[in-house]
Amino acid sequence: MRKVAIIGVGMTHFGEHWEQGFRDLVVEAGLKAITDAGLSGDKIDAGFIGTMASGRLVGQEHIGGLLADYMGLTPIPITRVEGACASGALALRQGIMAVASGMHDLVVVGGVEKMTDLGVNTVSDILGGAGDQEWELFLGATFPAIYALMAKRHMYEFKTTEEMMASVAVKNHKHGAKNKYAQFQNEITLETVMNSKTIADPLKVFDCSPITDGAAGVILAPLDMAHSYTKKPIEIIASAQASDAIALQSRETLTGLRATQVAGKKAYEMAKLKPKDIQFAELHDCFTIAEIMAIEDLGFFPKGQGGPATLEGKTGFGGEIITNTSGGLKSCGHPVGATGVKQAVECVWQLRNEAVGRQVKDAHIGLSQNVGGSGATALVHIYKNL
Amino acid sequence: MRKVAIIGVGMTHFGEHWEQGFRDLVVEAGLKAITDAGLSGDKIDAGFIGTMASGRLVGQEHIGGLLADYMGLTPIPITRVEGACASGALALRQGIMAVASGMHDLVVVGGVEKMTDLGVNTVSDILGGAGDQEWELFLGATFPAIYALMAKRHMYEFKTTEEMMASVAVKNHKHGAKNKYAQFQNEITLETVMNSKTIADPLKVFDCSPITDGAAGVILAPLDMAHSYTKKPIEIIASAQASDAIALQSRETLTGLRATQVAGKKAYEMAKLKPKDIQFAELHDCFTIAEIMAIEDLGFFPKGQGGPATLEGKTGFGGEIITNTSGGLKSCGHPVGATGVKQAVECVWQLRNEAVGRQVKDAHIGLSQNVGGSGATALVHIYKNL
Repeated sequence: MRKVAIIGVGMTHFGEHWEQGFRDLVVEAGLKAITDAGLSGDKIDAGFIGTMASGRLVGQEHIGGLLADYMGLTPIPITRVEGACASGALALRQGIMAVASGMHDLVVVGGVEKMTDLGVNTVSDILGGAGDQEWELFLGATFPAIYALMAKRHMYEFKTTEEMMASVAVKNHKHGAKNKYAQFQNEITLETVMNSKTIADPLKVFDCSPITDGAAGVILAPLDMAHSYTKKPIEIIASAQASDAIALQSRETLTGLRATQVAGKKAYEMAKLKPKDIQFAELHDCFTIAEIMAIEDLGFFPKGQGGPATLEGKTGFGGEIITNTSGGLKSCGHPVGATGVKQAVECVWQLRNEAVGRQVKDAHIGLSQNVGGSGATALVHIYKNL
Repeated sequence: MRKVAIIGVGMTHFGEHWEQGFRDLVVEAGLKAITDAGLSGDKIDAGFIGTMASGRLVGQEHIGGLLADYMGLTPIPITRVEGACASGALALRQGIMAVASGMHDLVVVGGVEKMTDLGVNTVSDILGGAGDQEWELFLGATFPAIYALMAKRHMYEFKTTEEMMASVAVKNHKHGAKNKYAQFQNEITLETVMNSKTIADPLKVFDCSPITDGAAGVILAPLDMAHSYTKKPIEIIASAQASDAIALQSRETLTGLRATQVAGKKAYEMAKLKPKDIQFAELHDCFTIAEIMAIEDLGFFPKGQGGPATLEGKTGFGGEIITNTSGGLKSCGHPVGATGVKQAVECVWQLRNEAVGRQVKDAHIGLSQNVGGSGATALVHIYKNL
């Protein structure tokens, strides 16, 4: 297998884009990434695009064909992949496979979702398709309810408090306030979170990531060709994916995601690294409890210690590991298919020392973790600069 | 890159399955393929599943996670890919990449669609998402209308007749009548087609493939390991994919599919073969005109000669090349995400000499062509026995 590097990145602003359509967003992100790599479109060999629910959100399937057309890339192959909120990282992984196998050299990977064209209840129903439609959504379990169950159990088993969860949101807003691409570029206080409206007890509205439009893109190349395109190629030293039961009731535990644990373990093996070697991580904080579970599942803190660690500032700048410098899903926004690719973009900016205002000092190794639904799919990627 | 073989195949009956749900169908096909390969599930490394519109048809996205769970394969990675009616062949191609790259050894590839739970007008609207939603479907162009435009132009340029198109359906029903998995296992006459109701002039209802439930699966392995699992491994000697403009008005021609032409050319190069070397082919006859264009685009007959060749029996048993021995989309049925995988299953049965009642004599090399929408995506695979 060939080693793979990221040679270009780009993303749209994340937010409510009422004057840009689905295809405008993904074309903008893709072309920014191609430009950032110093390429023209005719050099691109193949593409992969992650999007969860374009069929229901904008009436359009066949996104690979659409993009090849609208990005002016025909007749190259472009393939859509879908794994709910992990669609972006799935696209990244397929791109890595295409380059690693030798089947393609220069590959564009995109992620996109256009979510604000429909009412919030409709969107919530559509997002429910990421869980078990027959055994969860049909019976009324939307995603805030599903993660609330996990939060309740985590509180019961480990004495995790609502303040600890709220501190995830406070930290991520603090980071997102420095990110010009973020949906919410404002800091918030613990009181704001604690006093906000309950969505599904114990989760309040400020524990939840928002509904967002946006797209992100990266360009992959074989590592041994990467230096001819950019002075700062970022090597992807691990790409791992795992699955778990789709419905909560079939899981062995509610207080962690087995798919994250398995993918994380595999990724550390591939990279020959340990959790303590990771300096910063983009994590899937679709709800605040999800980031607490992630820092435990990935071995940054022992099981049950994610809440106290966050409250004590161990996951912010100056802490033991810096999580979600982009603002995470909470503050940067969560266009579901785009998130996994945006995480890679943020890792690249950090490793290139270009994350103005939120730069991790001496950044050398970063990780991203992207989750589908309530954890039936999880992916972990590890990146390093050269 | 490692060479890749198919070591197991399976499929459900194609038809109206009112007592089986989406997940039942795909689990049945997947387990049949695993059993056919003489494996147990715990030997499988990874999976890929093609489905076009599960979100809109059955309210379920995140199909990779769902399948890992329902097939008892957690925690292995399973990834859904989507390219409209080419979703099945896309899944096959991703599986090939995963094995070729060395990232995985034993990979299950599935395709599925459950289409009969909704009314035909709703399904027609959902299928319209395979074309350009904004520039075609929104303005009323459903798929029969889009292919009718291509048929009209083909008739104008090449004097192709309605009888020639009808003869595609007659041949495919003749083949499908021998296939116990086919939706329609009955022969029809040219008069039946010619006298059937017009859907979109010049296409009549018997020129159109039906709405179908079904699933198909194959198991992939590195060629050098294949003989330890099966006495009859089938090598995949080419896998090619190409794209084209998604809307008809942006194409250079209406009388052929550029994506098929490009993918075909690439596939022949990979396999070091010429069109005349292909003994039989599973082609994407979503409408009869589509098979006529396919046999031209793939070089089996000169442009404009596909219609007369079909009418003269050159694509049936005893002809120059035998097309759609399974019955094709027309007679075997067209569960859109399953079709591309079903084509591979049929090619394997032919190359193993197991296609009872419709066996190609001395079958050695076969081809499959799978199209997304009206041709914005096309894939060509070539198979041979050892």
